[in-house]
Amino acid sequence: MNISSLTRPQLLLNKEICVNNIERMAKKAELSGAIFRPHFKTHQSVAVGAWYRDFGVRAIAVSSVKMAAYFADQGWDDITIALPVNICELDAINDLAQKISLNLLLDDVQVVQFLDANLLQSTGVFLKVDCGYQRTGIDIDNGLALDKILNMIKRSAKLHFMGFLTHSGHTYHTSNTKEILDIHHSVVRRMKRLKQRWSSLFPDAIISIGDTPSMSLAPDFDDIDEVRPGNFVFYDLMQRELGVCTNNQIAVAVACPVIGLYPQRNSIVIHGGGVHFSKESLRLKNGNKIYGSVVFLNKEGWSWPEEEIYLTGLSQEHGTITAPQRMIKKVKHGDFLGVVPVHSCLTAACFDNYLLTNNVEIEKMISQ
Amino acid sequence: MNISSLTRPQLLLNKEICVNNIERMAKKAELSGAIFRPHFKTHQSVAVGAWYRDFGVRAIAVSSVKMAAYFADQGWDDITIALPVNICELDAINDLAQKISLNLLLDDVQVVQFLDANLLQSTGVFLKVDCGYQRTGIDIDNGLALDKILNMIKRSAKLHFMGFLTHSGHTYHTSNTKEILDIHHSVVRRMKRLKQRWSSLFPDAIISIGDTPSMSLAPDFDDIDEVRPGNFVFYDLMQRELGVCTNNQIAVAVACPVIGLYPQRNSIVIHGGGVHFSKESLRLKNGNKIYGSVVFLNKEGWSWPEEEIYLTGLSQEHGTITAPQRMIKKVKHGDFLGVVPVHSCLTAACFDNYLLTNNVEIEKMISQ
Repeated sequence: MNISSLTRPQLLLNKEICVNNIERMAKKAELSGAIFRPHFKTHQSVAVGAWYRDFGVRAIAVSSVKMAAYFADQGWDDITIALPVNICELDAINDLAQKISLNLLLDDVQVVQFLDANLLQSTGVFLKVDCGYQRTGIDIDNGLALDKILNMIKRSAKLHFMGFLTHSGHTYHTSNTKEILDIHHSVVRRMKRLKQRWSSLFPDAIISIGDTPSMSLAPDFDDIDEVRPGNFVFYDLMQRELGVCTNNQIAVAVACPVIGLYPQRNSIVIHGGGVHFSKESLRLKNGNKIYGSVVFLNKEGWSWPEEEIYLTGLSQEHGTITAPQRMIKKVKHGDFLGVVPVHSCLTAACFDNYLLTNNVEIEKMISQ
Repeated sequence: MNISSLTRPQLLLNKEICVNNIERMAKKAELSGAIFRPHFKTHQSVAVGAWYRDFGVRAIAVSSVKMAAYFADQGWDDITIALPVNICELDAINDLAQKISLNLLLDDVQVVQFLDANLLQSTGVFLKVDCGYQRTGIDIDNGLALDKILNMIKRSAKLHFMGFLTHSGHTYHTSNTKEILDIHHSVVRRMKRLKQRWSSLFPDAIISIGDTPSMSLAPDFDDIDEVRPGNFVFYDLMQRELGVCTNNQIAVAVACPVIGLYPQRNSIVIHGGGVHFSKESLRLKNGNKIYGSVVFLNKEGWSWPEEEIYLTGLSQEHGTITAPQRMIKKVKHGDFLGVVPVHSCLTAACFDNYLLTNNVEIEKMISQ
């Protein structure tokens, strides 16, 4: 990587690591015969999307109608918008449904009625089911609510039922990998039972499961019809702290110029702040709150220090790295340090492009 | 405001509140004869900048070279880049310095030497001084370091010394307004002494002070030459919790469509997540962590509920509002709720425009 060409904060992407992450997940899905429908909210890039095509990926998930339109414009024609339907976006949804194979997500009878009355053509829908994360979805144990909405979907001429979808976001609140796998196995069991219970009414319905911690740790996807992880394409410090990935599987870092050296305060200040990393933080096991971890940039990309050095403070454009004096003495104004983010999805969303470590610049959409 | 025209998350700005905030600060500066150099990092908008012109503002501060170029292109010709110089951006700095009256910020002899050798013409510089925040700047009590760098600046033919600049960011770590004012008065006293100590070498040097908490609470700016607050233009929940503003002085909110209703979990889910609010959070005095506060949208803008309702969860695109069941019963899918952000600067940085509550759309720059 040509570090000397950098002048300001720049999101870096190691294509080799990224493609390895894709390949590992694609092969696991293939071995189990599961549909691999990766969530593209993490990278939001047509160029990264193209790398998935080499592994046979044709179906994707996105997190907004705008993102669906971006990828549809670039030839992706099988898209699930994995956020409950915003009925105010009906026009854009109808536009998309005419062009591509579109799946919507819903969990409310009011929305079923609205779509049935207002969709211009038959559109795929997934029922969002909650298996414990308690963000969106109908509680998987709420038989009455499930009965009501599923019968309503069945009666609709417009809604084509695709299956049951869940996101086990509570795997992010665990303290070891066994807890993640326990959640995962329990979720799979319950989702399978749900599908079986409705198999006479919906014989073709599938179950779709998504979170990166489960998808990374599960030995196989034998009992799952569709997997839709997103973050695994880059991974990040949050995943590493969960025990889900290693440092060498993290594919992104932000190159930040050094703008302040304060050995007496044990700190280095970089141009790299909340507008580059979002304000996602992480508590290390020792209780310290961090916003990123420092890596050293080199021709091939970056290397990790022997002992980790953290981004410990973040304001709008400044980042403060707490570092030992021996390191600060080696750093100069205008040097670039890499910072591996706590949450790669939110960091990527702050930028409008990636610089690959082979010096090629690739585009991404702007989140808002 | 025409709420029915909204389809997706939209940053809203109440111009009247915003102009009142500007007017109050401009008049306080005028009464004290202080230069009012507002920090434009909060709004990042040429249109909002134009409102300042009505109050005689001609000089501004920004937080990046890119932001300086954006405002310079739109006719702002007196700009301080209030982030320590990134020497890798020399070319862009030289370009700007040829077009406008540009001031740089520095705190390191290595940077003084670099600029002296590489600037193409005389450029204004402020010395960044630390009065306790400990982010950037030379410790105000470190006489040796101050001597060294100031003498070096004096000898430079390229660097035109403007004065001493500090940012009392530690006012954000206080628990009451008296503490903020105590910090402020102490900072002003120490900065004045510093200026006096160097008055024979730099008779025209000024002191420039910046944070919104101090600037909002100080009764006057009599002992300050230049004030550069930024956040006060919008304010936000963080400032309100510090006792710095009232709800009625907060000028921005994000309109978010309702996409999930979960009375059994006491929650409403909106399309509005970390990509719209950043992940800045706030601990209320009762210990609860929040990401925003809900307001009700109406024709004039928004109104605050009698009892506050908070955004308590935030993922990439979802926001979770914890609400009483009686409120959830009144809300429908497709309704828009307003959310006042914890940190308006970071929220504004997520969007590329504002919708004024009088329905006019105005542009802003994209942060990255």
